[in-house]
Order: sequence, then structure tokens, then C-alpha cells
Amino acid sequence: MLAVFSDTATLRHALAFEAELARAEAAEGLIGPAQVEAIARLCADIAIDPAELADEAALAGTLAIPLVARLRAALPDAAAAKALHKGATSQDVADTVLACQIRAASELLDGDLDRVATALAALAQRHATTPAIGRTLLQDALPIGFGLRIAHWQAGVSEAAARLRGEVATGATLQFGGAAGSRAGLDGKGAAVAARLAAALGLPDAAPWHARRGGVAGIATALAVTIGALGKMARDVSLLAQNGVGEAREPAVTGRGGSSAMAHKRNPTGCQVALSAAMRAPGLIAGILAGLPAEQERGLGGWQAEGPALAELFLLAAGAAEAMATVAEGLEIDEAAIARNLAAAEVGTDIGESEMLVAALLVPRT
Amino acid sequence: MLAVFSDTATLRHALAFEAELARAEAAEGLIGPAQVEAIARLCADIAIDPAELADEAALAGTLAIPLVARLRAALPDAAAAKALHKGATSQDVADTVLACQIRAASELLDGDLDRVATALAALAQRHATTPAIGRTLLQDALPIGFGLRIAHWQAGVSEAAARLRGEVATGATLQFGGAAGSRAGLDGKGAAVAARLAAALGLPDAAPWHARRGGVAGIATALAVTIGALGKMARDVSLLAQNGVGEAREPAVTGRGGSSAMAHKRNPTGCQVALSAAMRAPGLIAGILAGLPAEQERGLGGWQAEGPALAELFLLAAGAAEAMATVAEGLEIDEAAIARNLAAAEVGTDIGESEMLVAALLVPRT
Amino acid sequence: MLAVFSDTATLRHALAFEAELARAEAAEGLIGPAQVEAIARLCADIAIDPAELADEAALAGTLAIPLVARLRAALPDAAAAKALHKGATSQDVADTVLACQIRAASELLDGDLDRVATALAALAQRHATTPAIGRTLLQDALPIGFGLRIAHWQAGVSEAAARLRGEVATGATLQFGGAAGSRAGLDGKGAAVAARLAAALGLPDAAPWHARRGGVAGIATALAVTIGALGKMARDVSLLAQNGVGEAREPAVTGRGGSSAMAHKRNPTGCQVALSAAMRAPGLIAGILAGLPAEQERGLGGWQAEGPALAELFLLAAGAAEAMATVAEGLEIDEAAIARNLAAAEVGTDIGESEMLVAALLVPRT
Amino acid sequence: MLAVFSDTATLRHALAFEAELARAEAAEGLIGPAQVEAIARLCADIAIDPAELADEAALAGTLAIPLVARLRAALPDAAAAKALHKGATSQDVADTVLACQIRAASELLDGDLDRVATALAALAQRHATTPAIGRTLLQDALPIGFGLRIAHWQAGVSEAAARLRGEVATGATLQFGGAAGSRAGLDGKGAAVAARLAAALGLPDAAPWHARRGGVAGIATALAVTIGALGKMARDVSLLAQNGVGEAREPAVTGRGGSSAMAHKRNPTGCQVALSAAMRAPGLIAGILAGLPAEQERGLGGWQAEGPALAELFLLAAGAAEAMATVAEGLEIDEAAIARNLAAAEVGTDIGESEMLVAALLVPRT
Repeated sequence: MLAVFSDTATLRHALAFEAELARAEAAEGLIGPAQVEAIARLCADIAIDPAELADEAALAGTLAIPLVARLRAALPDAAAAKALHKGATSQDVADTVLACQIRAASELLDGDLDRVATALAALAQRHATTPAIGRTLLQDALPIGFGLRIAHWQAGVSEAAARLRGEVATGATLQFGGAAGSRAGLDGKGAAVAARLAAALGLPDAAPWHARRGGVAGIATALAVTIGALGKMARDVSLLAQNGVGEAREPAVTGRGGSSAMAHKRNPTGCQVALSAAMRAPGLIAGILAGLPAEQERGLGGWQAEGPALAELFLLAAGAAEAMATVAEGLEIDEAAIARNLAAAEVGTDIGESEMLVAALLVPRT
Repeated sequence: MLAVFSDTATLRHALAFEAELARAEAAEGLIGPAQVEAIARLCADIAIDPAELADEAALAGTLAIPLVARLRAALPDAAAAKALHKGATSQDVADTVLACQIRAASELLDGDLDRVATALAALAQRHATTPAIGRTLLQDALPIGFGLRIAHWQAGVSEAAARLRGEVATGATLQFGGAAGSRAGLDGKGAAVAARLAAALGLPDAAPWHARRGGVAGIATALAVTIGALGKMARDVSLLAQNGVGEAREPAVTGRGGSSAMAHKRNPTGCQVALSAAMRAPGLIAGILAGLPAEQERGLGGWQAEGPALAELFLLAAGAAEAMATVAEGLEIDEAAIARNLAAAEVGTDIGESEMLVAALLVPRT
Repeated sequence: MLAVFSDTATLRHALAFEAELARAEAAEGLIGPAQVEAIARLCADIAIDPAELADEAALAGTLAIPLVARLRAALPDAAAAKALHKGATSQDVADTVLACQIRAASELLDGDLDRVATALAALAQRHATTPAIGRTLLQDALPIGFGLRIAHWQAGVSEAAARLRGEVATGATLQFGGAAGSRAGLDGKGAAVAARLAAALGLPDAAPWHARRGGVAGIATALAVTIGALGKMARDVSLLAQNGVGEAREPAVTGRGGSSAMAHKRNPTGCQVALSAAMRAPGLIAGILAGLPAEQERGLGGWQAEGPALAELFLLAAGAAEAMATVAEGLEIDEAAIARNLAAAEVGTDIGESEMLVAALLVPRT
Repeated sequence: MLAVFSDTATLRHALAFEAELARAEAAEGLIGPAQVEAIARLCADIAIDPAELADEAALAGTLAIPLVARLRAALPDAAAAKALHKGATSQDVADTVLACQIRAASELLDGDLDRVATALAALAQRHATTPAIGRTLLQDALPIGFGLRIAHWQAGVSEAAARLRGEVATGATLQFGGAAGSRAGLDGKGAAVAARLAAALGLPDAAPWHARRGGVAGIATALAVTIGALGKMARDVSLLAQNGVGEAREPAVTGRGGSSAMAHKRNPTGCQVALSAAMRAPGLIAGILAGLPAEQERGLGGWQAEGPALAELFLLAAGAAEAMATVAEGLEIDEAAIARNLAAAEVGTDIGESEMLVAALLVPRT
């Protein structure tokens, strides 16, 4: 996930944008074949230090300015230099790169979420009818099937993953509008260029969304709900692993969960990763939502606050999903402890319709 | 909107829950005809001071405890008292009431969002080809059709409204699981009772979601994105109304927008309402998302933090939507100022494909 | 606390502002004795329905506009009407009222925080040397004096209360600047009027702070840290009260902590109140901090978002402090369970310097 | 600022902690002279790849575990290995390192805040009596001295800087408590060791604060208020720089503020940096405050969420302060535009007591 949002990946996507834009514009007759060839070759071959470019971008306020300047300087003639980036603006590059990264990141994340869901579904089914004490407000309540709690974890993660897929599908689209979002300077062929560019980059075509950020906000909030669903599982596992409870605990992982002072301890470090993510995500969302009332055709401050927060959310989600996948796949369940705690509660063993509910909860989401 | 979340409405929904639960359980043979008749009549007739009950609920930590106690005390015999609230828990009442209120609130809100969208669509079309200066990072950039900016407001609000409708449809469902969410004590007829109860209350049936709050979080975040879309429009209108700009301003509304010190001023008070909402919403969302890692079968603190935040979000959204509907329907646009500002920018009048983009943005969302 | 922020209290403070402003201006020779007499008498005698005025204020966007209009209409002559509110602006009234309410609310809150601190100090001392298992990352770690954990609760609350007192002392001051904050229209006597007005209202004098909101933000964040400190205590008490732990539990309070489905349960409802507050407070803070970059001499949206959030924070703090005071004063500690859990951990009984640390932590804060 | 929070700096502080801890324990007779010599020499000489260690720390959940393991492996004998890290826990290292970094970061930041304050004070005085239109709710209101607005920026930043210094002074202290915070295993000399260790590291001594995080929260919120004060200045500068206003603009900075599509534009990129920071900070605060209700002697998730958020806040503050220092030192003020806009407002030129207020606002804060 770090690689997806690395300076290297950012540069690669940005170069692809410039090359495919030139190709699309050539196909529409807006620039000449010599120009597009020079641009495409340069974008394929040029060696740029991503970290150095990132520094220049930080100063300029956007990546496109130093990148386009370097490319123009490296092009063989003025015609090619003029053809480069034609009709585009910095934010077209930045947002299209972001859309590509969102798609790559979501695919990665979906894999780990699927691991979580698959492992939990199996656990939920296996323990669907194991009588266990249910707990409400941190107090013993009435019996449930032990697998019912796990099925809820599974359903929470699955529902969140489905929402996230939907938001990514509609929200991570091509950005191409030019300086003021009007697609000026393209002889009325802006829409056609956009369609070609989108297809080449594997993104849905869309009207520009420079200052209309609801799609990004939708993706971000879906991520936060996903992180929260993983946090819910982590909260419960960490509570189950308490010494006075002992019904389940994380698998031992080499190099993880130790203590520098107490060698015997097994800390719920996987849960810690997910819970820490679940504490950070809500505030990151607040920062993204705060930027929605962007000024005019391109906002000042809000848009720029989005990128780092979104990347951070994906990193947190990836860390939490990986940690919880490991926990789900190796969760150690202590049936004797479950039985002992239930007996101590003195509330019988009627688990009601737990089994039926487990089945209902595990229905796949799309 | 205040009425939707009032103590009175809460009580009415809660009584409906208890009455319909009894009917559903009678239909499944779980309680007798005499009992259901007594319960249903009592729920229809009983006079309870909603404010007094709310005070008791605040102390008890939930509405159902004092309500059920009062109802039981008023029932004619022990059999009816025992039949009341059978197999249900406090949170079943609270969340089902919340689901009903969410649906009522969303419908109300949707009406005002529709007013906004309709008025903006007309404005966007009317001014689609009026050349105006586009502005990025608060600086003059290049020309756009004046209606293009308005079409973005419209699309932002329409997309947000569509997301909200989707989240409400899937997330505002029946809650019925009993004390630990297992539907115990119902002779295996819990699912059948749930189906009847859901149908009677006009809610989708669902597995219990006591501690799986992603659906509520999805609704809340969709609300926040909606508020942000209204805030975007408000931001732009307030910037357009500045004295050095003067391209548009809010309609005059009696009793609104004055100054206690300067009688001549017309303040953008409608925009203020929406912008203030847009500043408060992100934090309210953070509070709701923070509760997702709820403990076990019912969380301690997180769930209880949700209700007030969600009601506040609906109130903010309603206030912002009503204010922006009034602004959209009466927006005063000064074409001379638009032309003057564009001329001062000295960037020509090429508005590119603004008209085509307006058309693309105004496509209805579902 | 509800009374402190009620419409009635708001109106009372606003009338006091207008009356004392007139007196201060009369003392400086800016308005005549007949006018001040008429204004002061009217402010003392006028009967206004606070709820009705609140509705008008909601529409106008500020309380002062409808209030000043009503007062002017009720004054006997044009001279008095002109003398009223002289040199003041709506926000002068609103912020001065807020400052008065903050001081009243802080005093109330401080009383309950003091109850918490006093009760916890006694508990910490009593149990300073009781060996108990310390827990880190929700796992048994090494022994501590049971009172050490309590001393940390006490120190956390005491430190937070001290910070809050400091922020209130410097941040809740007179607001008096006039329409643009320049104290115009007062013949150069604005500073003298401000000094008199501040003294009469019992507030520190200060330069206007219409769009410089760091003081309010400081108060709000200090409140949130206080709520968090109460939440820390609540988190621990609720964990100690778990069935597998049982080292401490909330006192039974009539009407609180029951279950509509399980009569035998004693829920940690006091902890729930504090934890719920601790989940809501961070987001409310985010909303207040987001308003700091206020526009020019008076912001659009940010300032208006502050008041409700600040009142909500005080209500949450008051609820949490009252709940935790009750818990602290009646906390039931089970020494047998403490000893049993410690023995089960098999880590000996060396509590190190717990006693010395308890003493160090309980040093009073100012 | 990046260097302050770099893996390299973290490692250097952690090695200093272990070396000074050994020296303090030797001075108290807890470990022998040979051991302390070996440990101190190793900590001074050992070559560790900070990035590699950071990776191991990410897996282990804390830096101390892999660091102590490497150091122990490199020590000459078992006695020295046992003497290392004696009586300490991972969080002692992590929090002490954090305290050192907070102090270094605050000092750096204070330098840039001082640049801002100094430059703004000079500007405010120079323009204290320049009549300008004051603006409220984004509308022309009444005249003010142009320097009055600047004096408010200055006062906001100065007040925030003073709060931050106070919070850092009391909150960034030594952390030394051992595994459960009881200072066990040190023969009753824990307090003496702590005093020596604190002195050696240049930190105030303090009782352990593993799960009492109000001090860190106080620092973080003071940072956020500081960022907000810088954002206030940025908001106003960006509004003043609008084409229809033109009263002030950022200085031109090479490589900053350009446009990839419009070469003539001068974007308020410095303001953008500060405004973007001001949008992100509130949410980061929410994440830190959410962790206050930490579990027992060391929280699971909340504590771990704090460090990255705090580092991010310092980075945002540093970026905003540097950007605004540059803006303040080079702000281009257009007196003709100021006069023109005031004349257009037709509200005269009475700036009231602006000059006196400027003087009052510029009084130095400590």
C-alpha cells in the first residue's frame, strides 16, 4: 500500500496521463504525429528522481508544474513543448493520478478484506451453535451462539467492503477539465479527448469535478466505515483475550506482541493496529469533509488537504485489514473458557435463533 | 424536522413498536388474543407526558425501561404485562424508533433538496452560455459559462441526495433481536415475528444490528456529504455577493440578513446557515465513526453517542437545505457585473464546452 | 447546566448587557440621564417570551436584532431608542452573553469536578498499598497498588480542571467593539465604556475578539480534555466491573442502570454517560477548531457554529462530571476479587513505589 | 521539522534514554560501573539502520522491543545485558523520546511564529491609521484602520504561541514508570533514578503518565489553535488578494504560486499551505482526544494513535508558520486599492479607536 501512494507511483501515473493525453489529442487531430511521438517517448524514457520532484511539487503547490516544466525542457522542439499538457491543468493530473491510486489501493485492500471475511465466515459457521455468554454494556447478558458474534464481525466487514467498492466505482474517475474546468482550447473536442483518455487509463469518463468533491468524500467515508468494522472485531477480540475472560486470543506472530519488560506476555498487537486505525480514521474524515465547501472552480486549502488524508486512510485500512486477516485466520478459541464463563453467568444455554441468524448474516454482499 | 425528532414523535414510534410487536407475536401464537388486545388498546390510548418520560429515560439510560414500566403498570392483568415487550430489548425499541425517524426525516429533507436541485437546474440552463470569469485558488483564471458553476452545485447536491437515499434504503431497518441479539424466548418464531413487525412498521426486515453500526454510519456520512454540497453552493454564493464582485446575491428575506448596527447591509444569512452546518457536520461524523468499534453485543458509550449526533445532522441538513432552496429559488444574478468582471480579467470570452458540460451535469440522479 | 444555556438565561444576560452598556455610556457622557433611566428600567421590567425571541433570532441569524427591535419599540421616545445599543453590534451582545454563560457553567462544573477529585483522592489513599494486578494493552502485567490507578484518575481530572479554569479566566472576557470592531461612534471613549461595562458585568476587559477565536477554542479544548479525563475513569471502572474481573462497580442508583429484558443486571450507566460524552467531545472540538480561520472582521459560518458546540460540550461535561462524582463517591471495591485476580496472574505482590506515586499524584492543582 | 521526527532522531533519543538510564541507575547503586560503561559506550557507538529498526518496531508495536534486543545482543556479557533497560518499559522509551521531540519541535516552531509576530507587528503599526473598509459576513461594514486587522492576526498568533509554550513546559516531561507504572524492581530508588534521568535528558521530572494523556492532548490542542490562528491570517490575505479587492497579496516566491495552465497567475500558495493545515488539524485533534479514555495502565490503540498525529500536527504547524512568515515579511499592500474600496463603500472614514486597539493588541505575550 505504501508503494501505491509512493512518489514513484505518483510520477508513473502522471507520466501516463501526459502521454495518453497527447495520444488522445493526436487521435482527435489536435496535435501532430511528430509531437505525440516525442511526448510519448519522453514519458516512457525520462529518468526523474521522484523524491526530488516531490520536493519541487511541495514548493509549487502541485506536482504538475515542475513535471511539465521538466518535460518541456526535455522535448526536442517548441511544437512538442506546446503540444504537451495541452488543454490540461495541474489538478487534472493530480486528481487523475489520485483516481488511479484509489483504484489500485482498493483492489489491494479488497484482497485483505476478503481474507478477513472468508476466515470469519468459516469460524462463524463452526461455532454457530456453541453456547456462549452474550455481553451488553460490558456485562453478562444472555447466551448466544459464539459464532453469532463472529458472524456480525463478518457482516460488518463485508457490508463495508461492498459500500467501498461501490463508492470507488462511481467516484474514482477521470479528471479532465482544463484551467477553469470548461475544456477550452480544444476546438470543441474536449469531450472526445476525455473519452479516449479515460479509456486509455482504465478509468470511467466523467465531467470535471475540480471543486465538486463528494465522490472523494464518499470513498473516504466508506473507508472509515470499513476501518470501523475492523475495529469492532479488534475491540471484541481484545476483550475476549482478557485474562479474566480468555475465550479467544490472537495467534502468536513472530516479532509481534511481545513486551520489553515482561517476556511471558502475549499482547493483542493485531487488535492494537486496527483499534489505533479506528481512532485515527474519524478525524481524517472530518478533515476531508471540511473541505467540501470548496471555493469556486478550484478550492484553496480544502482540496490540497484531501490527498494526504486519503492516502493515510488507505494505509490505515490496509494495516488494519492485514492485521485482522492474520487474526481471523489464526484466532485461537478456547471452548472450555467459553463454557466456563457461560456457566458462571447462570443464565442457561438457550441461544435462540443464533444459528439461523449466522446463516442470514453470512449471505455474500456485492 | 424538529417534530420528527421530538420527544412526542419518539414516544409515538415506541408505542407503535410495542403494539405491533404484540400483534406480530399474537399472529405467531406467542401471546394470546386477550393480551394483544389489551396491549394494543393501551398503546393507542395511554396519555404520557413525553418530556417527563424523556427525563426518566435520560436517567435510566434508555427510553424503553421507563416506558415498559409504565405500560406494564397500566395493563389490566399479569398475563398482559408479561406479554408486553416479549422477546424484545431496550435497544430494539430505540433503534427501530430511530429507523422510523430517519425515514421520515429523509423524506422531508429530500423535498428541500429537490427544490434546490430544480431551481439550480433552471438557473444553470439559463446562464449556461453567459461568459463569466472562472476563479481558481481565489484568483481569476479563465472564462466559463456562468451556468457551469451552478450546474456543479446542482450535480453536487443531486449526487449527495442520491447517495443518501441509497444509504437510508439499506441502513434504516427494523431492529429486533432481544436481550443479546439471539431472538431467544420466541420458540423459534423470532424471524417470523420480525418479518411481520417490519412489514407493519413499514421498515425492511433485517438481522439485528445492535453492535454493527455501519448502516447508521453510512447514513450519517451521506448526510454530511449532502451538507457539504450545500455548503459548497453557499461558499460560492457568499463569494459572488462580495462588494468587489457583486455577480449574485441572496434574495432579501423579511427578518433575515439584517444588521443591528448597519441598516443598509444585506448579509448572506442563508449561506451562513449552510456554511455553519458544513463546519459542524464533519465533527459530528467523527463522533459517530468513533463509536463503530462497539463492545460485544451492545456497546458502552458509542451507541448512545449516535442518536443525538444523527438527529443534529438531520437538523443541520434540513436548515441548510431550506436556506439554500430559498437562495436558489430567488438568487439575484447581475449580468452586468459578470460581464464587467470578465472584461477586467482580460482573458477573452472562450467558455469552451461549458454548455455541453452543463447538460452532462444536469442528468438526473437516482 | 441546561438552565445556564437556556433561552431564559440568554435573554437575561442580553438585557443586562444593554442596561449596563447604557449606564457605562451615560457615565462617560455619551447618552443622557433620561435615556439611561428609561433603558435600564425597560431592561429590568420587560416581559419577553424567550422561546419566541429565540425563533426570531434563528431567522435573523443573531439574537440582538430582534431584541433591540423590541426594546426600541417599547422605549418612550426616539432619543432613548437611539441611545440604546449605541456603538454596539450584534456579536458584542452574543459573545458577552456567551462569556457570562461560560463563567457560570464553569463554576457549576468545577463543583462536580471537585466532588470527583475529593472522592477519588480518599479512595486512592485508602487503597494505595492494596496489591492488585496492573494491566497493559488489556493484559495482566505486573502488580500495582490498587490506589495508584485511582490516583491517576484523580490527577487526570484535577489537571484538566486546572487547565479549564485557566482558559476560562483568560478567554471568557467582555466583547465590545461595535460594527467593525473599531469602537467607532463613541467620541474616543470606547475604551472607557468597555472598562465600565466589563466591571459591571463581572468580566475581564479586553480588546474585541470578533474574529479572533483562540480564547473560545482554548476553553473548548480544555473542556474536551476534561471530558476525556472523566472518560478514562469511566473506561477503567467499566472494565473493572466486568463479570470476569469484578474488582469494582458503580453504586446502585434508583432508576439507573437497569435492563428492560434482564432484571438482575446492573449496567455501568454512569460510565456510559461519561464514555458517550468522551466519544462526542472530540468531534465537537473539530467543529470549533475548523472555524478559527474566520473571514475578516466577522466570520461567515464559523463563529455561528461555535455557540451550540460549546454549549453541548458544557452539557456533556456536566453530565459526565455528575455521573462520575456519583460513581466516585459510591464506588464499590471488592478486595477479595482484587486479591484473587492478582494471585491468578502469578506475578508476586511487589507494588514498587506505588504509595509514593499516589502521594505525588494527589498534590493539589491550581 | 521532518528531521526532528525522523527515524534517525527517534533512534538517537532512544539510545540517549538507555545510556542515561544506566548512568542514573549506576549512580544509585542499582547496576555496576562495568555495566554502565559497556552500555553507555554501546549506545554511543552502535550503528543501526534507523529505517530497518522502524520496520521491526512497526511489527513489534513499539520501538523499544527490537532496539533493546539488538543492544542486548551486542553487549559483552549477561550482566550488562541484564542491566540494560532495567526497570523500564517500552512506553517509557517511546514517551520520553516523544517529549524530547516535542521540545525540539516547539523550539523550531517558536522561531517561525516569532518571525510571523514580528513582521505583523511592524505592519500593523505602519498601517494602524490607514482607513480601510472593514468587512463582516463577507460584506462591507464600516471603516477600520487597515493595521487593526493585521494586529488581530498578530495577537491571535502570539496568544496561541504563548499557550503552546505553556503546555509544552508542563506536558513534555520524563516518562519513567516501568512495566505497570509502579517503578518496581528498583529497590525504592525509582524516584531518585527518575530525577537523575530527567536532569540528564533536560526534561522535567514527573510521575509516570502512561495512560494519563491530558498533557499530550493539551500540547496537541494548543498546536491546533496555533494552526488556526495562522489559518485566520491566510484566510484574510487570500480574500484581500482577490481580483475584485486587491488590497494585499503574497510576495512572489520563486517556484511557488504558479499555474501549469496560466503563466500570468500569482496564486496565494502560502495561504494555501496554512489553510490546508487548518483544515487538517481539527480532525487530527479529534483523533488524539478520542484516545484519552485509555484502558487501565496502558491503553490499546489510543496511545499508539497519538504519536503519528502529533508529529503530523507539528509538521503542519511548521509548514504553515514558515509559509506565513514569508507572507508576513513580504506582504504587498496596495494603499490605492484600500482607499478605492473604502470610497466605494460610502461609509466615511471614521476608524474609531483603531490605533489604540492596535497598540493594545500588540502587547507581548509570555
